[in-house]
Amino acid sequence: MGELTRELRELLDSNKVGVVATTTKTGRPRQSLVYYARDGEQLLISTLAERYKARDVERTGWASLCVMGHESPYPAATFYGPAEIVRAGIGPPTAAIVQRIADLPEPPPVQTDEALAAIGRVVLRITVDRVSAVNYLT
Amino acid sequence: MGELTRELRELLDSNKVGVVATTTKTGRPRQSLVYYARDGEQLLISTLAERYKARDVERTGWASLCVMGHESPYPAATFYGPAEIVRAGIGPPTAAIVQRIADLPEPPPVQTDEALAAIGRVVLRITVDRVSAVNYLT
Repeated sequence: MGELTRELRELLDSNKVGVVATTTKTGRPRQSLVYYARDGEQLLISTLAERYKARDVERTGWASLCVMGHESPYPAATFYGPAEIVRAGIGPPTAAIVQRIADLPEPPPVQTDEALAAIGRVVLRITVDRVSAVNYLT
Repeated sequence: MGELTRELRELLDSNKVGVVATTTKTGRPRQSLVYYARDGEQLLISTLAERYKARDVERTGWASLCVMGHESPYPAATFYGPAEIVRAGIGPPTAAIVQRIADLPEPPPVQTDEALAAIGRVVLRITVDRVSAVNYLT
């Protein structure tokens, strides 16, 4: 904990997408582009329980997210940590992520856990344990 | 082979940076932002032999690269495949990558393998074997 400097918080808060990585059953990396939200030292990604990345996290308990600025020199950092698939209390973070995806002025109405479960939605939550970044971000 | 549609080639050729992933000794994903160049169905990354990602590739023989467009809706694809650390004949690809990094009109002078070895430079080469992408890119 306490891994996030001001510069790293700014990188996370001024960008919306990152590349999440998990480990497959055969020990290989799996990557995909995702929108995320930050809650303190936790990174939150909305996904579907059936997605391979969610299954990887349930099996391995670990993930990383690489976040970058989108112009040269492409400042970037990778956030590593224990990860879990969360199904309870996920209405507010899901709304926060949807707000960022759709660039809404306010979060959309919060859905209940039951409504989100009915459409298979879960939250992949990474608790930042270690950061690897270009030197001017650390 | 033959994994790259026209749309995927355009994604690769119109962008410069991606997030490379390898697997650590403990089986966890490692990620970092890199510049790359494409040579047919191979993706080339200039790195240092001492970097953890190079050691991961020498140990596992596998890597992936996630490449994205830098504006909403952030089109993205992950390119997976066998990977190796190359030390011979790396002058031209290294020059091609430097040209992309520095946005030069022409590639810089090609260095010999010996000159690159003296500064620890190697090329991480991924041969694309499988692609996972948003549907409008496949």
